[in-house]
Amino acid sequence: MTADGESRCGVVAVDAMGGDNAPAEVLKGAVEAHRRGADVVLVGDERVITPILSEIDGTLRVVHANGAISMHDHVTRSLLKEQSSLRTAADLVMSGDAGAVVSAGNSAAIMAIGLSVFGRLPGIGRPAFGGTLPARNQGVFVLDIGANSSVKASNLIQFAVMGHAFVQLSSGISEPRIGLLSNGSEDSKGTQQVREANEALRKLDINFIGNVEGNQVFEGGVDVVVCDGFAGNILLKGAEGVASEIFELLKSELSKDFVARVAGAALMPVFSRIKRRVDYEEYGGVPVLGVNHVMVNCHGRSKAKAVTNAILLAAQLARERLPERIGRELREDELELGRRRRWARALHLKHD
Amino acid sequence: MTADGESRCGVVAVDAMGGDNAPAEVLKGAVEAHRRGADVVLVGDERVITPILSEIDGTLRVVHANGAISMHDHVTRSLLKEQSSLRTAADLVMSGDAGAVVSAGNSAAIMAIGLSVFGRLPGIGRPAFGGTLPARNQGVFVLDIGANSSVKASNLIQFAVMGHAFVQLSSGISEPRIGLLSNGSEDSKGTQQVREANEALRKLDINFIGNVEGNQVFEGGVDVVVCDGFAGNILLKGAEGVASEIFELLKSELSKDFVARVAGAALMPVFSRIKRRVDYEEYGGVPVLGVNHVMVNCHGRSKAKAVTNAILLAAQLARERLPERIGRELREDELELGRRRRWARALHLKHD
Repeated sequence: MTADGESRCGVVAVDAMGGDNAPAEVLKGAVEAHRRGADVVLVGDERVITPILSEIDGTLRVVHANGAISMHDHVTRSLLKEQSSLRTAADLVMSGDAGAVVSAGNSAAIMAIGLSVFGRLPGIGRPAFGGTLPARNQGVFVLDIGANSSVKASNLIQFAVMGHAFVQLSSGISEPRIGLLSNGSEDSKGTQQVREANEALRKLDINFIGNVEGNQVFEGGVDVVVCDGFAGNILLKGAEGVASEIFELLKSELSKDFVARVAGAALMPVFSRIKRRVDYEEYGGVPVLGVNHVMVNCHGRSKAKAVTNAILLAAQLARERLPERIGRELREDELELGRRRRWARALHLKHD
Repeated sequence: MTADGESRCGVVAVDAMGGDNAPAEVLKGAVEAHRRGADVVLVGDERVITPILSEIDGTLRVVHANGAISMHDHVTRSLLKEQSSLRTAADLVMSGDAGAVVSAGNSAAIMAIGLSVFGRLPGIGRPAFGGTLPARNQGVFVLDIGANSSVKASNLIQFAVMGHAFVQLSSGISEPRIGLLSNGSEDSKGTQQVREANEALRKLDINFIGNVEGNQVFEGGVDVVVCDGFAGNILLKGAEGVASEIFELLKSELSKDFVARVAGAALMPVFSRIKRRVDYEEYGGVPVLGVNHVMVNCHGRSKAKAVTNAILLAAQLARERLPERIGRELREDELELGRRRRWARALHLKHD
């Protein structure tokens, strides 16, 4: 890469047209990320973007794209829209004009464009979506949270490698604690894939703490939780559902009588702090791990704050070259002398 | 069955030695269930039980059993302990002296003894554990929550039939809304087993509402959630974990300053009400569905209240003959004219 290309690798190409609240909330989020130091280029319909930008006093570079992928477009249709804002954003990365893509659009389309435009990282069978959930005193990074309903043991091991690299980089934890999601903490628990992955992960030179159960995910004792996209999605959505129902219950109980209303009002700052702790918006976006460049997907319902956080995350991942880092972890020729890094061996399991 | 046997079918044989808090909490729970009208027989070591019973002023019939299955005994070891309290309780059902078994012991042992002593219901490939989770304004019954890590589509359909019968009987809902847990509400989402089960369940004359996501489980729009034991266990434990962390956070926030402490104290009744709503103890026990007699397993950590609720549930299920009811639903010769009950056809899927 040229010195010029090098300098652009921190530029984030933002799909201005993706998401339920696009483009207004996406633009607000991008302007704020820019204000906080991120190098941003907006991609989308100039005729729509420019008036909104001037309304919110934002000055960002815009790359025009004619079309957009809707939240309901199927994967094949998404891939056919060659002029879409998302596809154009990915093309900017391929031409070296940006180092990362952020979109709050359709996640199936994002994964499809990531795979077709960027390609998979060598050594990765299946890319995954990773998401940060709130846990005691920290966040916990869970992957896969929805890209792959069914996986092989080798995919789970690759997820562990990717999660390890992501958390090292994004949280600065030198030896993240890696757990394998299962229906019991004993090694014998889980599906065949989980049991095989458990055995293989024990042989790797990572901080593998064994199987973790659903409740342990939130207790603060694990940094990376590895699972298939079916279980991960259920864990994530279930957690969102429980938290949201508890707050609803609290709200309805606090309006029941005078004492509750007064005491509840006094505690508003407390409730807001707690709600903020368990709010997915605080955690910005979901990285697409295993493709050859940095992509971050925001929740479709994202408001400006989530977009800002996603852009800041994407800029960091691009600057610190996460995909290269994962690739390095996976390559046999990078095995460190004296450390028993056995990715390669562990990745060749009998059932794959 | 004789008239005498008939009258005993409501008797609940309680494993007095099973669970982390056995025998004391189990005995307290049994005495309370008896006070509330349940017909109970305690099974366990008389020399241990009698002094505790007299201490708590309880007068219940005791059937002596020499041994007990510990929480850590493996399945084979559990099956070999022919004098165990759990096995003796099951034998009481086989001899017609009781109609149901309740135990807070080792769930693997309970399933093993249910299968070996009672046998499976005809038409059921795999028995399941079902659990009630708190949802908006109601409970939601989820099965399987841990007996089967991997299932076929036919197992999921049988779970739907069993859940349907259980909720009709225990909650009096005439047409329970049945949902299939998946990583998306569209029919195309989920593992191959889930997609096949979705297709088959659509053909049955039940109130099948399609796939439900993790958050929908808690929103009050579904009465029975069908899933494999891996996903069910993760949903259940994840929900417990999130609720418990939110309450911990609340507790720590409420001790931070004077205003929070005062307002928090005023709101104690509110917090207790909410906590009670999401407390598994309120929901008593977990039925073992698909074996030939009624069995209810309490959480290993159960205190008296959970045991009482489990005994009352078991008595009801035995009186109303849940296993026969499930069997009837599954038998082709009971197909009602004019209703498109196609269990039999749906149960013969191409992949089984």
